Amino acid sequence: MVDNRTRVDPGKLTDFSITALETLGMPAGDARIMATMLVACDLRGVESHGVAHLRMFYVRRFRLGIINLNPKLKTLAEAPATATIDGDNGFGFIVGHHAMKDAIARAGNTGAGMVTVRNSTHFGAAAYYAMMALEKNMIGIAMTNSAVIVLAPGSSRPAVSTNPIAVAVPTDQKPPFVLDMATSAAAGGKLEIARRQGRPYPEGWLVDGEGAPLTDSTKPRPPEGGLLPLGGIPNTGAFKGFGLALVVEVLTGVLSGSTASILHNLPPEWRGHYSDHFFGALDVARFTPVDAFKKSMDATITALEALPTVPGVDRVTVPGPYEAEIVAERVAKGIPLDGAVLEDLRTLGEEMGIPFDIRVS
Amino acid sequence: MVDNRTRVDPGKLTDFSITALETLGMPAGDARIMATMLVACDLRGVESHGVAHLRMFYVRRFRLGIINLNPKLKTLAEAPATATIDGDNGFGFIVGHHAMKDAIARAGNTGAGMVTVRNSTHFGAAAYYAMMALEKNMIGIAMTNSAVIVLAPGSSRPAVSTNPIAVAVPTDQKPPFVLDMATSAAAGGKLEIARRQGRPYPEGWLVDGEGAPLTDSTKPRPPEGGLLPLGGIPNTGAFKGFGLALVVEVLTGVLSGSTASILHNLPPEWRGHYSDHFFGALDVARFTPVDAFKKSMDATITALEALPTVPGVDRVTVPGPYEAEIVAERVAKGIPLDGAVLEDLRTLGEEMGIPFDIRVS
Repeated sequence: MVDNRTRVDPGKLTDFSITALETLGMPAGDARIMATMLVACDLRGVESHGVAHLRMFYVRRFRLGIINLNPKLKTLAEAPATATIDGDNGFGFIVGHHAMKDAIARAGNTGAGMVTVRNSTHFGAAAYYAMMALEKNMIGIAMTNSAVIVLAPGSSRPAVSTNPIAVAVPTDQKPPFVLDMATSAAAGGKLEIARRQGRPYPEGWLVDGEGAPLTDSTKPRPPEGGLLPLGGIPNTGAFKGFGLALVVEVLTGVLSGSTASILHNLPPEWRGHYSDHFFGALDVARFTPVDAFKKSMDATITALEALPTVPGVDRVTVPGPYEAEIVAERVAKGIPLDGAVLEDLRTLGEEMGIPFDIRVS
Repeated sequence: MVDNRTRVDPGKLTDFSITALETLGMPAGDARIMATMLVACDLRGVESHGVAHLRMFYVRRFRLGIINLNPKLKTLAEAPATATIDGDNGFGFIVGHHAMKDAIARAGNTGAGMVTVRNSTHFGAAAYYAMMALEKNMIGIAMTNSAVIVLAPGSSRPAVSTNPIAVAVPTDQKPPFVLDMATSAAAGGKLEIARRQGRPYPEGWLVDGEGAPLTDSTKPRPPEGGLLPLGGIPNTGAFKGFGLALVVEVLTGVLSGSTASILHNLPPEWRGHYSDHFFGALDVARFTPVDAFKKSMDATITALEALPTVPGVDRVTVPGPYEAEIVAERVAKGIPLDGAVLEDLRTLGEEMGIPFDIRVS
């Protein structure tokens, strides 16, 4: 593997992405929301869900005519603490941003807000939505389904989507706790990065239709087999990862009046893009004093980070504070993009006739 | 390993347990709640959390004087959809039953009910509380912390409790979906069963202070090391299991105004018994028509169970419908108890002077 990564400026990358999305025809405010979320992913080191997807995934799908750039979001059902929203085939970023704000508003009124969404599309990384709750001193939750590529324990054909769960929790001086995890052994985007960088898939991620490990990332994936659920095999918890994935299927697909992803009946061009989502917010102040809660979070993270380690491990890290270190480094030095991603963005600029100057100056 | 299990009658086992708890001084209604939950575990095949714990764990703790048989539950804070409850050191079964009913009532009013609980004790299996929501056509959620025995990725000392998450979802003709999973690679009770039955611990469950696998269940566990989080090692998702465990720590310990379990500062006799909980309910009818939801759940389970399998696996099973088969078999033939458990219950009967006749007649 050759390290051919180039550092680009986060602000310039955001502006370039906004211009590209506006050129597609997206309203300016929406383009800013979507571009900000994509770059936020790259800043956090989640390179599977950032600008690498801008042309190959989002712009391409738009050009197929399946994304509604001016969706009319409809609230199909609601109660004081809950809502069901139809996303009208808008970009998932815009639909998700609206629905998470709805959940936060309901939590402000009743203590909890729980919102399920159907007829949306790929919304990027779940963490961003969960983190929207932080400035209101709320705990944020976000989940989504997508295409079925994860096996059930013992199945030779996929059963569920990678079904990420994100939870963000406010802290005092420490960076916030932020979990964003696929319920499969690895996220689909991690496979993409391995292929892009010419690395083998680690054992325990993928198996073929006979259940044998698949590690060669240079070969096309066979039609049978798929990603293992979190837990890998039954003895080490595969039914837990599968079970969590099913919880996400229920809260996103079934509760919204769509379906679990195994029953999504989609035209081929929709596959991998259609999504149902779930968003939640809990208002800390309605449970316990906010200051004490935040200090208790700090004390917890401090205690965990102080734990002794096994040989070969430097230190214990906690989700959220760990990624905050990556953000700080990338804000200071720029975001490293793989050569293939940089070339793809350059191509996008040429196709659209917009200036491409995003390197760190 | 010798199979020395004896089948006992679920009704007689419940009655025996009620009498034992009443003899301790528990109010009759509470004794029935707790005994019913213990036997429900054994019926579902969750032998780690059933009557095996009655004498060795619950009665022993009561005799240490640390359980309040007549707790005065206090609502410390509330909003329409949320509450924080103090359990006044009651048995977790009684505190949890009350708090889950509170969450269900709030969901009836606002669509969602989210309740956190501090100053409670070991509440048995989380599934029972989640399943209380089913008869109201609600999705139920239950979580708890307890003693710190699970490692962070790379730590040589435990960081979090096994922190189970249970979710129950109503169905139409199919048995309900019920997930009840520790966020560690294995539940603490699974170690107990391995020891009781003289089986080795499977690799991937426990490691020592150097990170080396521990499989010999006949030796005492060393002071360093502990259970691995779900996901095992970082490459296969250990940060996911650890992250989920931290979410449970937040919703149970931190949000209730207690602390994460790593900061519980407990006298030794409380260790392994003190717990904070979290309960949630979502009223399906406020999101989408109940009948359509239940039929969609059935269709999902049917599609999953019809998936083809890898060689050596008979069929794909789904959490909930799978355990329902065990319940049906045990209702018909009786609950098989390990010899050690049967002897322990006989001893309890003798100690308390209550008749012990629980075999299947």
